[in-house]
Amino acid sequence: MAKIPVGVLGATGMVGQQYLALLANHPWFEVRYAAASPRSAGKTYRDAAAGRWNAGAGLPQDSVWDLVVKDANDISQAVKAREEGTCAFVFSALEMGKDEIRQLEETYAAAGFPVISNASAHRWTADVPMLIAEVNPGHTDIIPLQQKARRWDRGFIVVKPNCSIQSYTTPVYALIAAGYDVKRIIVSTLQAVSGAGYPGPASLDMLDNVVPYIGGEEEKSEAEPLKILGSIQGNAIVNAERPAVSAHCNRVPVTDGHTACVSLEFGAEKPSLDEVKRIWGDFRALPQELKLPMAPERPIIVREEENRPQPRKDRDADKGMAVSVGRVRPCKVFDLRFVGLSHNTIRGAAGGGILNAELLKHQGYIS
Amino acid sequence: MAKIPVGVLGATGMVGQQYLALLANHPWFEVRYAAASPRSAGKTYRDAAAGRWNAGAGLPQDSVWDLVVKDANDISQAVKAREEGTCAFVFSALEMGKDEIRQLEETYAAAGFPVISNASAHRWTADVPMLIAEVNPGHTDIIPLQQKARRWDRGFIVVKPNCSIQSYTTPVYALIAAGYDVKRIIVSTLQAVSGAGYPGPASLDMLDNVVPYIGGEEEKSEAEPLKILGSIQGNAIVNAERPAVSAHCNRVPVTDGHTACVSLEFGAEKPSLDEVKRIWGDFRALPQELKLPMAPERPIIVREEENRPQPRKDRDADKGMAVSVGRVRPCKVFDLRFVGLSHNTIRGAAGGGILNAELLKHQGYIS
Amino acid sequence: MAKIPVGVLGATGMVGQQYLALLANHPWFEVRYAAASPRSAGKTYRDAAAGRWNAGAGLPQDSVWDLVVKDANDISQAVKAREEGTCAFVFSALEMGKDEIRQLEETYAAAGFPVISNASAHRWTADVPMLIAEVNPGHTDIIPLQQKARRWDRGFIVVKPNCSIQSYTTPVYALIAAGYDVKRIIVSTLQAVSGAGYPGPASLDMLDNVVPYIGGEEEKSEAEPLKILGSIQGNAIVNAERPAVSAHCNRVPVTDGHTACVSLEFGAEKPSLDEVKRIWGDFRALPQELKLPMAPERPIIVREEENRPQPRKDRDADKGMAVSVGRVRPCKVFDLRFVGLSHNTIRGAAGGGILNAELLKHQGYIS
Amino acid sequence: MAKIPVGVLGATGMVGQQYLALLANHPWFEVRYAAASPRSAGKTYRDAAAGRWNAGAGLPQDSVWDLVVKDANDISQAVKAREEGTCAFVFSALEMGKDEIRQLEETYAAAGFPVISNASAHRWTADVPMLIAEVNPGHTDIIPLQQKARRWDRGFIVVKPNCSIQSYTTPVYALIAAGYDVKRIIVSTLQAVSGAGYPGPASLDMLDNVVPYIGGEEEKSEAEPLKILGSIQGNAIVNAERPAVSAHCNRVPVTDGHTACVSLEFGAEKPSLDEVKRIWGDFRALPQELKLPMAPERPIIVREEENRPQPRKDRDADKGMAVSVGRVRPCKVFDLRFVGLSHNTIRGAAGGGILNAELLKHQGYIS
Repeated sequence: MAKIPVGVLGATGMVGQQYLALLANHPWFEVRYAAASPRSAGKTYRDAAAGRWNAGAGLPQDSVWDLVVKDANDISQAVKAREEGTCAFVFSALEMGKDEIRQLEETYAAAGFPVISNASAHRWTADVPMLIAEVNPGHTDIIPLQQKARRWDRGFIVVKPNCSIQSYTTPVYALIAAGYDVKRIIVSTLQAVSGAGYPGPASLDMLDNVVPYIGGEEEKSEAEPLKILGSIQGNAIVNAERPAVSAHCNRVPVTDGHTACVSLEFGAEKPSLDEVKRIWGDFRALPQELKLPMAPERPIIVREEENRPQPRKDRDADKGMAVSVGRVRPCKVFDLRFVGLSHNTIRGAAGGGILNAELLKHQGYIS
Repeated sequence: MAKIPVGVLGATGMVGQQYLALLANHPWFEVRYAAASPRSAGKTYRDAAAGRWNAGAGLPQDSVWDLVVKDANDISQAVKAREEGTCAFVFSALEMGKDEIRQLEETYAAAGFPVISNASAHRWTADVPMLIAEVNPGHTDIIPLQQKARRWDRGFIVVKPNCSIQSYTTPVYALIAAGYDVKRIIVSTLQAVSGAGYPGPASLDMLDNVVPYIGGEEEKSEAEPLKILGSIQGNAIVNAERPAVSAHCNRVPVTDGHTACVSLEFGAEKPSLDEVKRIWGDFRALPQELKLPMAPERPIIVREEENRPQPRKDRDADKGMAVSVGRVRPCKVFDLRFVGLSHNTIRGAAGGGILNAELLKHQGYIS
Repeated sequence: MAKIPVGVLGATGMVGQQYLALLANHPWFEVRYAAASPRSAGKTYRDAAAGRWNAGAGLPQDSVWDLVVKDANDISQAVKAREEGTCAFVFSALEMGKDEIRQLEETYAAAGFPVISNASAHRWTADVPMLIAEVNPGHTDIIPLQQKARRWDRGFIVVKPNCSIQSYTTPVYALIAAGYDVKRIIVSTLQAVSGAGYPGPASLDMLDNVVPYIGGEEEKSEAEPLKILGSIQGNAIVNAERPAVSAHCNRVPVTDGHTACVSLEFGAEKPSLDEVKRIWGDFRALPQELKLPMAPERPIIVREEENRPQPRKDRDADKGMAVSVGRVRPCKVFDLRFVGLSHNTIRGAAGGGILNAELLKHQGYIS
Repeated sequence: MAKIPVGVLGATGMVGQQYLALLANHPWFEVRYAAASPRSAGKTYRDAAAGRWNAGAGLPQDSVWDLVVKDANDISQAVKAREEGTCAFVFSALEMGKDEIRQLEETYAAAGFPVISNASAHRWTADVPMLIAEVNPGHTDIIPLQQKARRWDRGFIVVKPNCSIQSYTTPVYALIAAGYDVKRIIVSTLQAVSGAGYPGPASLDMLDNVVPYIGGEEEKSEAEPLKILGSIQGNAIVNAERPAVSAHCNRVPVTDGHTACVSLEFGAEKPSLDEVKRIWGDFRALPQELKLPMAPERPIIVREEENRPQPRKDRDADKGMAVSVGRVRPCKVFDLRFVGLSHNTIRGAAGGGILNAELLKHQGYIS
């Protein structure tokens, strides 16, 4: 089977790099189009990005280094590439102003490109699904409505949520899916510096230090789970009413891997700790059933050691796509406490985007 | 006025070192007796400790380097020192098994030494006060009862609480003292490695990593505030009933300074954010009234910047004795959120112990 | 072809773990025997090691977790295992006193086991080769002499050098092999904490700090290259006379990857910088010719960026087995300056040991 | 005695902040004028700098927070301040292009201001002395020639060298001053991130990593000692011919404190190690004789511990103004090895500049 040619917008940034690294040797997709800012346009990807390559030990397939980077603002280049068979859809890892991203992503969609976005610009657009493939794969049902309302034919936009919520949203969803009402959550996150892109926080702020603030992050961490857990009503995705979330977001001196300390209150019915661990350990969802290439075997890995999960030891679990949970114990104030951990640039960014694309391919939205 | 001669038990350990550094040039006290393990006994303090000196840039007074370290287990040495006028009371920074410490501290007290302890051994002994000088200075009223019950004449034991609770207990107390009922608290701490003593955590566990577990720390963090906020009833200090505390304790790659992210639920009456900040900014207590040498001018410093307090920038505030609070904002689940920070080896250990001793001297228990 | 069953002595330590992780799915060898201290003996490897697992994201093959760990001091266990077909030779990653290791390794060899050692105990035994497979593969010619002198039949001992020298010894050898006389070297190393094993340096010593001393490391760094570059004369390996090496060894807050800053003086004939880079880029040796499974394609990778190599970005190059060099430039005092970097627990420890075993298998010493 | 009013140019940057912190309570100087970029001009210092305050726990005198920051480019403001008695001379901590700084400093000097500069712009101007107060205080003799050649009356420019050389230049000078010929030096530096100003290196480049390159730093480290050790000949300072220096400059994850690993070759006469340590321990220079306020008691502190100096433990020695040396040992290639350490933003920047100003006041150039 010929691979589907894909473009990456914002290909030289940190998340863009991660897309290229993770797509090397992908069985379904092949990166054949890279676009970035005008500053990079016209250079080979090697010249544009080699000096700032930051995506761990992973490297893109060799052919990517020789791609001539295009100007992401110049949609005609992408259209031409599609005609040449090198760009059937795009991953958006754009790093610009929110309004510019919103418009540019719409321009791509209007021009017929499925846009799988990592950006926050469209997360609160009512008919744009915010996907975690294991949690709300059915939200893609809104795509035809999105296309119809905007008179787009093949193009559409889907987004993924912020990296900060991935360490607890899937575990919380698994409990809800098992029939338990999750009423309230208080969560403190300890987030890696790569979550801020490059250059991100100054080393003077992160050596021997912690910064108990990340602009906009707490708001996203509190609101986004509600849309993901919501439902399609008419032409819009309507938020779930629960759980109420209070988030304390901290930046810590860790390269990759976001940790979340969660206190959780159930409704009337409360599972035992063993039941919680059983639910998480057994949790499988559509990506696992479909054996999507990027899907982790087990979306949630339960650690029994008293001092796990830890970023350096657990972030890479199952290709960086699994959420590791541990320290499952009662809460002195609510019902349940646990620690969740996920890789913020893989599960929480590029890997999550690729998994969404795989789901969309399976569902027929991408081909 | 001649200075009161004081001994430090466990003088070569991390907290012991901090005591020596902070007592250099103290106006009331002078270290003239140092005791440690049999391994160090007989050496000069220079030989016993110089190679492991870790208490920042602070150094003990010059005369300390030449003290011959005694065996802390050999109480007769301390008695002899008292007779020679070089040890009127002791700071206990012992590092051994809990049972051994409990017995040894009692032995010192029985031999007539006031024991100001940093250890956890006696924190839950009913007639031993666990002091934060700004919060429960009146708990020293139990000392005569303690002495009577145990037939000790001049000796007694007071302890200080764990370093993990200092970043939130004083702010919480200030709210209670202002008349507000604090019902429940969920707190996540980001604790410095010096809190574990030396050598403490391995660098392989703390570089590019976070460990979401500290043995015994959550239990202490939840229980100790209740004793401190409790009251003397008969021969015992009886716990306060509130607030219920749920603590998530994390070790982070920071040398000094514990950070706490707090969500707090009030009773029926809830102060505004401005009122909270006013209460904290205006808070003064007995150590401030008495102008005790180690007392910070303002026990609670309210930071208005959006990204403070931070360990490296705020831990040394007011000689490391102030608690810095910031990010005062509403909680989406409870009523109030804030971040508290204090220096764990100063406010949370040796500095707090010295302040307790100053209080006891003022109260006439030490002379 | 059936895989050769192999045992790992010191299997629960940091280097032992790395052996197990790197040998998962090895095409020639399969770990079927694990021995460690009496403390671990009798437990499954899972119980003995899971809580201290530290070898990055790599994991041993599943079957290893269920191996019952034996006491490494009890040679009869290994003999029994050989009889049962589960231990044909051993990797020694023992962590005990040097004299004990020396004796124990001899006992294994005397009992007929080829011993591929990571320990320093036998590095200066005259008839024990200290191997870097790309540099002195011919030193294995001494094995029959070693066996004869000691009346061992199948058993023998080979060792690998200290991790600190791997970042510069192969580049220096490549220049010598190209015909240039390397007279003197002054090198400063910036070494990762994993080089000290676990727990290794305290985090209090490595956060916001550098320690300009590693016990015994400078001596090893200066002497070992001379044996490796030496030659077999009679029954002994005789040191090369050059280069003279002066080493400054520093511990830096890096998890993995040793960096070396080298100033090098040539003899009369001095290659140009381009010639140096050509020699390094083209360097291939016996392991590459033989396509040994663990051999890197290119033993030396020349980086042209002005700020490389860097530990986090380059340590994993070619499975962690390549040495990355960069900043090739003239020296103001000697002739040549460069920076070399290699992964200390892979190239510098377990990976190097495995490559040595592959060489020995090819040469017929292991089967 | 009334204090001399002083201005700080570039007052909001990292070095500017350090000047303000170190000048709080200075016995001779008082900061009464602060200038920075047009962006900060017109704001109080509090508003301009509070959010970016980074100079450790030190704080400026209270009155500085209320100073209205002026535009450093607007020389008329400084002239007006002088007339009002609030700016007799200036410390330049400007952060702009080198050419702009060169011109602007000349403009201040031409307007009659002594300029004590931290910038590199004028380091190689032949009649501008590059001062380390303990090494070449006599180079200020060129000031009258500088003034005459440029037709300046009271104004002049002096500079201080780069922070990277301070850890070894004073020790090397002390050996030269004791009569030993120092021929060649190979030095590797491990430099703190604060040396790059704020924001400086990205945390992603400095967590779990080392960067073996700092732009322009090796050139400065090799050349500047020669001017400092040079002599006035006619209207110019002429470089010393020795020692030849080869520098390897590395950025390491340390907040403050530059470490240097030095191999040193003497001429024919070679002191013993004891003699070297004696020379360093006894070294005193003009600032010590004059008891200048910022002068360390001992410019060079010799540490005998095997693992010192270390940045976190030694950078603050004697107010951050002493150079700590240790690991004094023979070199296997040259004659002597040692490790030097100094605080880069104090001894290597603002503290060194203040000491220079104190020297100039003593010499009558500032009043």
